[in-house]
Amino acid sequence: MRRADELKNLANLDFERFERAGKPEAVFAEGKSVEDLVKIVKRFIEEGKSTLVTRLSREQIEALKSFEEVKINERGRIAIVGKPVSAKAGKVAILTAGTSDIPVAEEAAVTAEFLGLEVLRFYDVGVAGLHRIVEPVKRIREENVDSAIVVAGMEGALPSVIAGLVDVPVIAVPTSVGYGVNLGGITTLFAMLQSCSSGVAVVNIDNGFGAAVFAALISRVKRKAAGED
Amino acid sequence: MRRADELKNLANLDFERFERAGKPEAVFAEGKSVEDLVKIVKRFIEEGKSTLVTRLSREQIEALKSFEEVKINERGRIAIVGKPVSAKAGKVAILTAGTSDIPVAEEAAVTAEFLGLEVLRFYDVGVAGLHRIVEPVKRIREENVDSAIVVAGMEGALPSVIAGLVDVPVIAVPTSVGYGVNLGGITTLFAMLQSCSSGVAVVNIDNGFGAAVFAALISRVKRKAAGED
Amino acid sequence: MRRADELKNLANLDFERFERAGKPEAVFAEGKSVEDLVKIVKRFIEEGKSTLVTRLSREQIEALKSFEEVKINERGRIAIVGKPVSAKAGKVAILTAGTSDIPVAEEAAVTAEFLGLEVLRFYDVGVAGLHRIVEPVKRIREENVDSAIVVAGMEGALPSVIAGLVDVPVIAVPTSVGYGVNLGGITTLFAMLQSCSSGVAVVNIDNGFGAAVFAALISRVKRKAAGED
Amino acid sequence: MRRADELKNLANLDFERFERAGKPEAVFAEGKSVEDLVKIVKRFIEEGKSTLVTRLSREQIEALKSFEEVKINERGRIAIVGKPVSAKAGKVAILTAGTSDIPVAEEAAVTAEFLGLEVLRFYDVGVAGLHRIVEPVKRIREENVDSAIVVAGMEGALPSVIAGLVDVPVIAVPTSVGYGVNLGGITTLFAMLQSCSSGVAVVNIDNGFGAAVFAALISRVKRKAAGED
Amino acid sequence: MRRADELKNLANLDFERFERAGKPEAVFAEGKSVEDLVKIVKRFIEEGKSTLVTRLSREQIEALKSFEEVKINERGRIAIVGKPVSAKAGKVAILTAGTSDIPVAEEAAVTAEFLGLEVLRFYDVGVAGLHRIVEPVKRIREENVDSAIVVAGMEGALPSVIAGLVDVPVIAVPTSVGYGVNLGGITTLFAMLQSCSSGVAVVNIDNGFGAAVFAALISRVKRKAAGED
Amino acid sequence: MRRADELKNLANLDFERFERAGKPEAVFAEGKSVEDLVKIVKRFIEEGKSTLVTRLSREQIEALKSFEEVKINERGRIAIVGKPVSAKAGKVAILTAGTSDIPVAEEAAVTAEFLGLEVLRFYDVGVAGLHRIVEPVKRIREENVDSAIVVAGMEGALPSVIAGLVDVPVIAVPTSVGYGVNLGGITTLFAMLQSCSSGVAVVNIDNGFGAAVFAALISRVKRKAAGED
Amino acid sequence: MRRADELKNLANLDFERFERAGKPEAVFAEGKSVEDLVKIVKRFIEEGKSTLVTRLSREQIEALKSFEEVKINERGRIAIVGKPVSAKAGKVAILTAGTSDIPVAEEAAVTAEFLGLEVLRFYDVGVAGLHRIVEPVKRIREENVDSAIVVAGMEGALPSVIAGLVDVPVIAVPTSVGYGVNLGGITTLFAMLQSCSSGVAVVNIDNGFGAAVFAALISRVKRKAAGED
Amino acid sequence: MRRADELKNLANLDFERFERAGKPEAVFAEGKSVEDLVKIVKRFIEEGKSTLVTRLSREQIEALKSFEEVKINERGRIAIVGKPVSAKAGKVAILTAGTSDIPVAEEAAVTAEFLGLEVLRFYDVGVAGLHRIVEPVKRIREENVDSAIVVAGMEGALPSVIAGLVDVPVIAVPTSVGYGVNLGGITTLFAMLQSCSSGVAVVNIDNGFGAAVFAALISRVKRKAAGED
Repeated sequence: MRRADELKNLANLDFERFERAGKPEAVFAEGKSVEDLVKIVKRFIEEGKSTLVTRLSREQIEALKSFEEVKINERGRIAIVGKPVSAKAGKVAILTAGTSDIPVAEEAAVTAEFLGLEVLRFYDVGVAGLHRIVEPVKRIREENVDSAIVVAGMEGALPSVIAGLVDVPVIAVPTSVGYGVNLGGITTLFAMLQSCSSGVAVVNIDNGFGAAVFAALISRVKRKAAGED
Repeated sequence: MRRADELKNLANLDFERFERAGKPEAVFAEGKSVEDLVKIVKRFIEEGKSTLVTRLSREQIEALKSFEEVKINERGRIAIVGKPVSAKAGKVAILTAGTSDIPVAEEAAVTAEFLGLEVLRFYDVGVAGLHRIVEPVKRIREENVDSAIVVAGMEGALPSVIAGLVDVPVIAVPTSVGYGVNLGGITTLFAMLQSCSSGVAVVNIDNGFGAAVFAALISRVKRKAAGED
Repeated sequence: MRRADELKNLANLDFERFERAGKPEAVFAEGKSVEDLVKIVKRFIEEGKSTLVTRLSREQIEALKSFEEVKINERGRIAIVGKPVSAKAGKVAILTAGTSDIPVAEEAAVTAEFLGLEVLRFYDVGVAGLHRIVEPVKRIREENVDSAIVVAGMEGALPSVIAGLVDVPVIAVPTSVGYGVNLGGITTLFAMLQSCSSGVAVVNIDNGFGAAVFAALISRVKRKAAGED
Repeated sequence: MRRADELKNLANLDFERFERAGKPEAVFAEGKSVEDLVKIVKRFIEEGKSTLVTRLSREQIEALKSFEEVKINERGRIAIVGKPVSAKAGKVAILTAGTSDIPVAEEAAVTAEFLGLEVLRFYDVGVAGLHRIVEPVKRIREENVDSAIVVAGMEGALPSVIAGLVDVPVIAVPTSVGYGVNLGGITTLFAMLQSCSSGVAVVNIDNGFGAAVFAALISRVKRKAAGED
Repeated sequence: MRRADELKNLANLDFERFERAGKPEAVFAEGKSVEDLVKIVKRFIEEGKSTLVTRLSREQIEALKSFEEVKINERGRIAIVGKPVSAKAGKVAILTAGTSDIPVAEEAAVTAEFLGLEVLRFYDVGVAGLHRIVEPVKRIREENVDSAIVVAGMEGALPSVIAGLVDVPVIAVPTSVGYGVNLGGITTLFAMLQSCSSGVAVVNIDNGFGAAVFAALISRVKRKAAGED
Repeated sequence: MRRADELKNLANLDFERFERAGKPEAVFAEGKSVEDLVKIVKRFIEEGKSTLVTRLSREQIEALKSFEEVKINERGRIAIVGKPVSAKAGKVAILTAGTSDIPVAEEAAVTAEFLGLEVLRFYDVGVAGLHRIVEPVKRIREENVDSAIVVAGMEGALPSVIAGLVDVPVIAVPTSVGYGVNLGGITTLFAMLQSCSSGVAVVNIDNGFGAAVFAALISRVKRKAAGED
Repeated sequence: MRRADELKNLANLDFERFERAGKPEAVFAEGKSVEDLVKIVKRFIEEGKSTLVTRLSREQIEALKSFEEVKINERGRIAIVGKPVSAKAGKVAILTAGTSDIPVAEEAAVTAEFLGLEVLRFYDVGVAGLHRIVEPVKRIREENVDSAIVVAGMEGALPSVIAGLVDVPVIAVPTSVGYGVNLGGITTLFAMLQSCSSGVAVVNIDNGFGAAVFAALISRVKRKAAGED
Repeated sequence: MRRADELKNLANLDFERFERAGKPEAVFAEGKSVEDLVKIVKRFIEEGKSTLVTRLSREQIEALKSFEEVKINERGRIAIVGKPVSAKAGKVAILTAGTSDIPVAEEAAVTAEFLGLEVLRFYDVGVAGLHRIVEPVKRIREENVDSAIVVAGMEGALPSVIAGLVDVPVIAVPTSVGYGVNLGGITTLFAMLQSCSSGVAVVNIDNGFGAAVFAALISRVKRKAAGED
């Protein structure tokens, strides 16, 4: 009965330690009614637990404004309920190719801050004007950044260019910004996966939240090594 | 009977003048048997007419080597039968992102030369190492180039970057170089059409021939203005 | 440190000369709030700078009507803020296959005029009634046109037919006009890229703006040759 | 038990009359072994029945050459076993856009002749050179043709143009001729379905056989009216 | 100057005869403003000309109700302006697989009647209950129908089944009825093109109008043979 | 530590009972070298264990012929190593639309027999000739069949038609038989999922093995109820 | 006249017995007007017949609330008109991966109960937290469940995991829950069809109704064996 | 001249430091002739430089066997020329779902070892048998692994399951293993991007090399923090 024994071993693993680690509780607001969302948020507040609420609609944002425990970032359509998880978790640079990519970048930024990361924002630095990437590349190199989140729509070329100039992992986030052959971001996604620079990995279209969680896990590697986690 | 009259006008247009202009006769070799191809080439030679033969297979190339009127470019899988059309038609820069894109670039180069264009080649200057684009950009700016053909596979970012740095029309040629989500070049094509730089137009995947014909038509605009054509 | 030196060379290129050239500043209105758009337009007016505003919604158009410095083309959903860039830049023919393609054609026409091109409009001349193409073909041949922008939806056959009859570069613009297998214009785009006539290059679906910028760059080739630019 | 009664009615329909009508027995050779194919053909010969064999490979063609009852059209990769069905069934015009479309057209032509149709062939009359369509259009109008089969690859524009000039039903056959965005003929198929001319219906990619059967059914309508069928 | 001569011949063809034949003038209402549509319809009425108006919205239908010269079919979202073209042109059967396919079938039926065809309607006879097809098959066989238009969504199996039981051409119309993998009707379209019965040709998704025009052209073949057209 | 407890419960489940049940060990031969495959088969023989080997190539079949413990079905490209699992497990009908679907059907049939099912084969009973389905429908109704596996390529209509006439679960298997818009079986798959008859579920393209395993699990439900399993 | 005889046999089959069996009458509400829907429901009530109404909109639900014979499940957007078909038909487990999948699961659950199945619900037990699947797996094994319906969106991994742990047929229902590359559920559907566990069959996206009908047919196999049906 | 100044700053960045960092030189062998590949490899050997050669064909592998400086991993189709870059860079776990995924995993493993990472291999631990994941999860938790590379084809569920059980970044590699709806790995890729577990990022299909480079960059974060890099 080898299989059963192995499953027992799995059962004996310390799940609690894992639960302290890295991945935040989060509420995906899209598709939820305002009433349901308010109910969920209230429960978190009553239990004194923290959480992120992502993909808020205009209407949901208005409904959450009355809670003083809720801090809303309207551009990123994201809210923090309660207190951020920790401080001093590491440092991440967040870049966008255009201004339309900023909402996704802000979702990433708020998530990263919630997870204790310091965030360096460099927005609207796309490849059509190469001079704009000088500053972010310099800062990434000089300021001990652990990883870079690069948010881009359209032809999605920015992650390739950045990964060719820095030596940290680049997490690429395709956005659904574009028209015609954009296909809701799939063209951008595929272009990023085709990157001729190595050192790039990709998350789902518009998934700023997932990119930031991944960045926080990278920074944790460092902290674990330093015995801080 | 208004329609008939209009069609008569069309019929009266001078087709001969048009036939002298811009677009070369060409033979698409792919899918033709060696015997059929040899027969076609012989007819051109006998009639003293020039033509291009594109998309040659290894076997077809061997068969054409015996003709002294045929000049073969093996890398570009293209041959010139007879004499090039003219000299001094203008100047075009041809760039590739990687080395695998060179066959398509050579198809373009030979076609352009056949049509009388001077060709500046800049190969393997992709965006993963930005320092490589300095030289071609400088030369395009300083040497009175009429247009640039930019050949790229993978994420297809090079045309965007080049178009952001030069002031001539950029003709982008997606190649089927890549794997996984490349989809035989469609990802590259779509990324190029999504270019956030304006001043880029695109031809079919691997269509170096078409890009060069288009470049020659651009250069003709100049020559017509100068009364040379 | 070869790479660094090469990048220094790039840095020394004269960007100012480039900025005078060919490519207009433009604001993509789609997805912007009316308030944000008005703010942006006001800044251009205050700084005395010219720009194009593309993809205007009905509501945005109403908001811009109060500005006397703004000239709106409602059909093309495009506005000029300030004065056009220059006069006498060249000549372009703009053709559409059907009446539904006219908004995209007007976006191209206004952009071209903004960039100093003279525009010849030939609308609703699709291939289902061939007698309709006589007039535009004749005019393109006789009036020293530098390039032709051909706007079509549905099966996208017009660029092929026109390119077979004229000797200037044909810039094809697929539109999202159609239903069923149209796939938002992708069928039209692919059909155009498959054109059996050479001398055709393609821009993104519905991208009248991009086609006109490309046409202006073609006309600049002529003017540079004539020492006018 | 209404349903059962209705099915009995269906059962009482005269199937034999139907079996005499319009649709030929046919063997699809693709994927069959040479031995299996020879066995099948022999059985038809022994039973004195006629049939068509379509999509023959080079190897299969060689194997069938020894049978004197089999008449092979190598270009169309199709063979007739036994005698054609009838004579004087009607008249069909078959057009191709390019030379590469001819094998599919020949499959249609042989099938049509097998079904008793007179065939008018007009090959290589694509839209890149409009003057080439004059002759076929004139003949279709003057010679009492019942329908036109238009075979095209690439951008598939020929059926639209022809349907705009003739008053018989146009059966469009997309071919898998093309490269890049051709997608094995799907682009051509979709472009044909998008035709801005009415009077066009479409069959599967490369399906010359199906187009000819459909044409024969159209001609039968006429013969039935004349009491000939 | 062979080409010019040939085009002259084309110009000399009798276009007027063609214009009397088969293909109706039609207005595609989708995307047109109510005001524009009313203006167009008024012009037809004033000039005493007949036309079809297809793809009417609820709002457009209300606006057209005030005209007594306009006869509206609300289910088919189609209107006849003026008098039908002719009587006694032939006979067509129109079948649908489900009740949701009826609007497209009615578009076909009204168009067919406008073109002088007698229409036999058989609705909701899909393959999930085979006993339902007995009646239409019997009537098609017995009543001298020239062609059958088969309208179906979902798996699109009805045209195959019908074509296996009747001896007239089957014009298949895929509809966008379905969900999940329906892909807006493309699955249905592809299934119909894959039909294992010969004698089926297909028009664009939801294109009832095109199917009816095609059916009218088939019936004209008969009338021409009888010297009636 | 609720989670750990729950996982312990999972671990305590009786895996052995499960291993006796329903799902056979199987070797997917595609892509394996002949040597590797022979090694794997030998191990099964030595250990006296039974297994299925699916998707055999011509070459692999030849190599396995020397083993007397291996029983090969060449048409289904499948082999049984050792003895079938059991007898008297239930009854399944297997139908195909065409003859080209038979290899996939045979893969299902051999798998079903290996799992102890009695198999009723009805091949080449597609919807183009409805009279062919009478026999299989009658037998399914009269002979206490537990489920029906319906294998079809092309338009995939057979499962819909069968499910409309029988009262057992229909397991549809799309095959990659077809051309043009078949898309390697995806069109067939989608058409089957769109079935307007309820009572149909689908497995992956060409997955005869999976369909038979599913059928065996259905028959086990009966045997469990009867206390036989 | 063999064919006719065979069809007569089909006609003689006992349709009435079939009509008592397995497959419920159902009304697909999507796209129907409130008035039409109310009319249909009234007719069922007047005739004393039972039916299911699926895919109800918010507005349609309000309209049906006034009927006391109608029992509405708002979450599943489904209503029962009249009395369920029978009791004691069998037992099915219904699992969902997330909370967003519950509406589809409820459509399945209500349909199953209408068909006389006992339903075990296990919601929100997705693979991101494996400890959650312990309870449902245990219950499925211990409680004599006939089949399991597994409803999942996103990566659709739950059916594979469950099928690896239980010995009953798993009916997988992909949902359109997800974003970015979800493609309206097609990614989930394809992932499920690729399942590396055997014993899984799939229905259309969001088709809870179809899954439950299939489950009821499986349970009928058992009852037929026991002579109960 | 702000732009030029900024570009000068870019030029002054220390590229040499970057070149020491993280990303290895690599040769993509696919599509290269044996002669060209041997030439390239010889140059590396002569210059005493190290490199990886990926995607070797059977023939290329044979040709490289004669070089003693080349160490070939045949299963991973990858070779190391010269000495690995460094030792003690960190630790990575590499898991595969099936045995067919091992070649891609070995490409990753060899690359990781070349970059100085210690590799823990856990192959064939897919979700169809959950007990198999106990060991790898335990080892990842206990042995201070920096990241996990999870290689899977088919439904691609393994990364989701693993990411739900460990607290390190999971780099998912979709493989082209599968058939039917696998679409060359795109289904697997999309399923992975849809992962309901956070903490997963994805690279291109079959891109084991890219995953390993990314893992090495993650480990470098730790070493930089520890002042080792």
